Amino acid sequence: MSSILQGDHIRVSVFGQSHSKAIGAVIDGLPAGFKIDFDKLKTFTQRRAPGNASFSTARKEADEPVILSGLCDGVTCGAPLGMLIENTNTRSGDYDDLRETPRPSHADFAANVKFHGFQDVAGGGHFSGRLTAPLCFAGGICLQMLEARSVRVRAHIYSIADVLDTPYDPVHVQTDDVAAKPFPVLSDKQGEKMRGAIEKARMDCDSVGGVVECAVTGVPAGFGEPMFDGIENRLAKALFGIPAVKGLEFGSGFAGSRLHGSENNDAFLTDGAGHITTATNNHGGILGGITSGMPIVFRVAIKPTASIAKPQQSVHLPTDTQTTLVIKGRHDPCIVPRAVPVVEAVTAITMLDILGG
Amino acid sequence: MSSILQGDHIRVSVFGQSHSKAIGAVIDGLPAGFKIDFDKLKTFTQRRAPGNASFSTARKEADEPVILSGLCDGVTCGAPLGMLIENTNTRSGDYDDLRETPRPSHADFAANVKFHGFQDVAGGGHFSGRLTAPLCFAGGICLQMLEARSVRVRAHIYSIADVLDTPYDPVHVQTDDVAAKPFPVLSDKQGEKMRGAIEKARMDCDSVGGVVECAVTGVPAGFGEPMFDGIENRLAKALFGIPAVKGLEFGSGFAGSRLHGSENNDAFLTDGAGHITTATNNHGGILGGITSGMPIVFRVAIKPTASIAKPQQSVHLPTDTQTTLVIKGRHDPCIVPRAVPVVEAVTAITMLDILGG
Amino acid sequence: MSSILQGDHIRVSVFGQSHSKAIGAVIDGLPAGFKIDFDKLKTFTQRRAPGNASFSTARKEADEPVILSGLCDGVTCGAPLGMLIENTNTRSGDYDDLRETPRPSHADFAANVKFHGFQDVAGGGHFSGRLTAPLCFAGGICLQMLEARSVRVRAHIYSIADVLDTPYDPVHVQTDDVAAKPFPVLSDKQGEKMRGAIEKARMDCDSVGGVVECAVTGVPAGFGEPMFDGIENRLAKALFGIPAVKGLEFGSGFAGSRLHGSENNDAFLTDGAGHITTATNNHGGILGGITSGMPIVFRVAIKPTASIAKPQQSVHLPTDTQTTLVIKGRHDPCIVPRAVPVVEAVTAITMLDILGG
Amino acid sequence: MSSILQGDHIRVSVFGQSHSKAIGAVIDGLPAGFKIDFDKLKTFTQRRAPGNASFSTARKEADEPVILSGLCDGVTCGAPLGMLIENTNTRSGDYDDLRETPRPSHADFAANVKFHGFQDVAGGGHFSGRLTAPLCFAGGICLQMLEARSVRVRAHIYSIADVLDTPYDPVHVQTDDVAAKPFPVLSDKQGEKMRGAIEKARMDCDSVGGVVECAVTGVPAGFGEPMFDGIENRLAKALFGIPAVKGLEFGSGFAGSRLHGSENNDAFLTDGAGHITTATNNHGGILGGITSGMPIVFRVAIKPTASIAKPQQSVHLPTDTQTTLVIKGRHDPCIVPRAVPVVEAVTAITMLDILGG
Repeated sequence: MSSILQGDHIRVSVFGQSHSKAIGAVIDGLPAGFKIDFDKLKTFTQRRAPGNASFSTARKEADEPVILSGLCDGVTCGAPLGMLIENTNTRSGDYDDLRETPRPSHADFAANVKFHGFQDVAGGGHFSGRLTAPLCFAGGICLQMLEARSVRVRAHIYSIADVLDTPYDPVHVQTDDVAAKPFPVLSDKQGEKMRGAIEKARMDCDSVGGVVECAVTGVPAGFGEPMFDGIENRLAKALFGIPAVKGLEFGSGFAGSRLHGSENNDAFLTDGAGHITTATNNHGGILGGITSGMPIVFRVAIKPTASIAKPQQSVHLPTDTQTTLVIKGRHDPCIVPRAVPVVEAVTAITMLDILGG
Repeated sequence: MSSILQGDHIRVSVFGQSHSKAIGAVIDGLPAGFKIDFDKLKTFTQRRAPGNASFSTARKEADEPVILSGLCDGVTCGAPLGMLIENTNTRSGDYDDLRETPRPSHADFAANVKFHGFQDVAGGGHFSGRLTAPLCFAGGICLQMLEARSVRVRAHIYSIADVLDTPYDPVHVQTDDVAAKPFPVLSDKQGEKMRGAIEKARMDCDSVGGVVECAVTGVPAGFGEPMFDGIENRLAKALFGIPAVKGLEFGSGFAGSRLHGSENNDAFLTDGAGHITTATNNHGGILGGITSGMPIVFRVAIKPTASIAKPQQSVHLPTDTQTTLVIKGRHDPCIVPRAVPVVEAVTAITMLDILGG
Repeated sequence: MSSILQGDHIRVSVFGQSHSKAIGAVIDGLPAGFKIDFDKLKTFTQRRAPGNASFSTARKEADEPVILSGLCDGVTCGAPLGMLIENTNTRSGDYDDLRETPRPSHADFAANVKFHGFQDVAGGGHFSGRLTAPLCFAGGICLQMLEARSVRVRAHIYSIADVLDTPYDPVHVQTDDVAAKPFPVLSDKQGEKMRGAIEKARMDCDSVGGVVECAVTGVPAGFGEPMFDGIENRLAKALFGIPAVKGLEFGSGFAGSRLHGSENNDAFLTDGAGHITTATNNHGGILGGITSGMPIVFRVAIKPTASIAKPQQSVHLPTDTQTTLVIKGRHDPCIVPRAVPVVEAVTAITMLDILGG
Repeated sequence: MSSILQGDHIRVSVFGQSHSKAIGAVIDGLPAGFKIDFDKLKTFTQRRAPGNASFSTARKEADEPVILSGLCDGVTCGAPLGMLIENTNTRSGDYDDLRETPRPSHADFAANVKFHGFQDVAGGGHFSGRLTAPLCFAGGICLQMLEARSVRVRAHIYSIADVLDTPYDPVHVQTDDVAAKPFPVLSDKQGEKMRGAIEKARMDCDSVGGVVECAVTGVPAGFGEPMFDGIENRLAKALFGIPAVKGLEFGSGFAGSRLHGSENNDAFLTDGAGHITTATNNHGGILGGITSGMPIVFRVAIKPTASIAKPQQSVHLPTDTQTTLVIKGRHDPCIVPRAVPVVEAVTAITMLDILGG
């Protein structure tokens, strides 16, 4: 197992299961001397907290992080920052049969094979989306450190089901006020339609997926390494660590693969004062694995929540027979809104590392 | 710089520039005692070699690999396998002005900033697609080692421009005879249309992109690690190391993000003899980062070749002025067909590592 | 900073400062399905606990570890095991001037430069020997897992000041009952002399150093990698992470460098039943970085405790003037006895990783 | 296998066997824009070359390195530097029986188990001391890059058998003219005695070991990480990769473990102009894993050459019987003099990496 987001300078070791005593993280390598703005950090982490809105799970979590080490008077001291969030709803009986009957499109079955039946199944165990809370905590700190260097990471809901938000202008990313919204979209009108789609899925005992678009602005040209340590490789390795992520594209991505070179290529421009930009940004800010100085833009595909209330076909493993599974408990009909800050967090950790910690 | 494909057991260190004395690789960690089938290896590596077909660059390369170490009588001996391919066309004058005027959507500009103008620009230097030759050599060996364990890695052209091949059936992947074809598609009829699209791009002094679909069959359930060392993370980190790759999706991927959970979830089935499969394979063989035992299926988006003969806007860096660039030399109007074995190679290296080397 | 003991399978991320809210560790990669014997674990970790004997610091620590995750009913579940130990004596005023006047041969000065004066100085901060408590907890679990595979790790005090214990017979290591002793030596008579030397140092407001000898038995031949990933490299990287370790030698080590080859070489023997051993074990169980099947034997040099009550010369950094420093608080006159289980622990973590986790 | 010296920025992947077509290395991560002084590099690498003196093996090697990539006009271009040295004496029949009868204290037996009998035994295969030639090449470049930053790495023979050279003054290291000597000692008189000891061992068909002392000057305070990524950990992991190294100590090392704290502690001094030093340097320039600004001083124990002409006991593996082995070929009676530049090289690679590449 490696639940360590392993950078060259910053390493985040995540621990916990959905119903263990606590979840948390150790953040190793944060630069010393940074004063954390805890109000800002709380505002950030609450963007992923459940129970804020009707599109989230009904499970209420206090999610109050406790910092164990790494700070002196609120300032990073160079030692690893250890933190935990206590689990208050532990060991519920809701999940007892998951070891025997794996939920479709969950990690249950694969984990059962890998861990020889010893995995913690309660609430999804270590595979629970709840494990993104410490990631958000770590990422929220990294975001502040990036902002002190004029680097900003912002994401929005690009689509839910087949409803599309206004995409970012990849040349002049319009990130300003999206993060503050309870439902982070550029077009509130499209946001309304998305919420409708989510609500309909909930009524149908079903779920929907979507896409998160993220932009990083302010990164100078020349960061990243060729071949296997480029910006894309590094972000990809981190972003696929977010539960339910099944796709990732940079710049024009899959759509770009359908274009001609003359359409997809980005002409270089100069302002005559030595500042080189590109007229378009189909390359998503990365050329040959290295930053070009343009905004880094990518999209992350998130599958529909696997836990749905509709009856589903599965196998009762002890008797090796087909069975119909009805998942108990209440689940998000759509995790995409809550995934937005998680994408920002994981991106921020990775980018701070790439910029040297 | 890290041009090392870094596995837990197998590490491939790639070196060379397009016009340096040689390119090559050191493959560290291959298991000892494996007899390499060199005829088969040659057949495999020639699938990416240029000059084989009208859709490839006219540059003829001998591409005869020389093995420097790591074998005794054609059998791996446990020591790192060093190999090189000599560059016969070195230091051509074709590229002399690339340091001054970066090609749109190439690594030239980003590398110029990163390496302070000292990068080797001839033929794209270390960023040249030619560097995929040693990767194919390394991957070709790994493919043989995987096949000895009944694991097969096969890819085909999924699309070029807007022409689609028949996709893989992700439950029963139809990989048998595609690799042997000069133009690796399932539907030869669609292949004809793709070749037409490529030929048209060539005539237009333009280029086209496409998508490669890859499947890995025969991997048992239970491999891979949660969170940041899952199969998706590992393959992603490797695959984005292939030049021109800008997107990656597993299973139903981006299309899956538009579905409902009830559509995207894969029901578990048993054959009554303890063999668990899924009725569909939208999860692409990976659940929670861990293999499910179903085929691993993913698609890689490849941008249109950046080098096109059409005049393009760029900046003459020494004078900081706009200029019109006309790229000399002959270039592939479409690298997608040649990318097919490269995707197979990089996947094979990664999968062999995941399976324990 | 990297306070992560980074194995291929097992990674221990250590956090905490001497006076932070808690210290602890995340142990990532433990195999699932192992039932931990907590009584045995407690017995082990108490061997390093202070306050047990007159040769230890007078600071009493409860050192009750709290397990946060990674277990189900006392059995490892495959998820990272998070644990913490609360610090009860936090933020004492004893250390307030250490930021201004670094203690000789402590990390104070180097940390002050590295962390720009933001390091936590209280009690030595992250550099405190107290951070070895979570390492012992992690190592105690690994020891149990190794014992289940018939691999044993045992250490004893090889010397304190110039008093030598009976060394291990490196061919037939006599480890049986040393660990159970309050003062872990083979020769209790020499142990008495060592305690005398420690007591004398205490009376003199001084300290003494020593050497710990460790043996690993039961490891089959053939583990470890050539060159930079050999057993020696791996153990060395880990063992120099223990505070105060300044030297390490395997087998005959430095003494062996004074011998002739004919004296230092270890003849191979067979029992006629395919079991190959060596007549002597000057190679310390490792040849070419790889285990030979003989006991792995090494010695670790531990410097005398840097904190002594005697007045010492230092520099008052704010005024850049010489000053005489008198270190307050009570400190171990000799940490070697407590280092014995720490050496065992770090060795166990590393060996379990080398054996495949 | 991992024959990769793995830094954060610089990675040296070593390949080759004693009798393979070539040996060599790929040096990944060298900063771009550095003009290599090839004369100086040649002078450095020739210090380890055999055949220069009567204390070396009689095997003459051309050892002419061929650079394959990574340079433009002799200047590093940022791409990995690939190099090889051809083996001219390949596949001699001298070593044919080593697979069957392992040489005492060589890697033969351990490698035979690890690689299931498929290892290359000729000339020691991948375990041959010859593999240090590409390390010296890589280290020689790093030495030049360090010198450009006023960091110097120098080593001398500290002892051979029981003959001691004048040790370094660890506060004011006297490194100036040792490297230029054919026999690198501070005291030529002691050097004569060492040569006598070597010559006597040769006459006796035996060998002798020794100790190399190394000093790094010019490294500012504040480099290195606490716990497992400190300077000692990093150097240890690298230095134990040199064949025959069995011990390592920093500063006062093992001798320091016999001292009192009041003797071993290093008082801090100021020159009144903000320049902090220590009166003595028992800490060897490293406190808490971090540089103190004082010279980094350490000693490396090298075992006597395992290959001796005297008959030795071993086991004939195919028949599982005791046998007397007489090693054919000519071997160094002492590798310590040739190990001096190898220690410098490996140290230089590691220190350049620690300083940021």
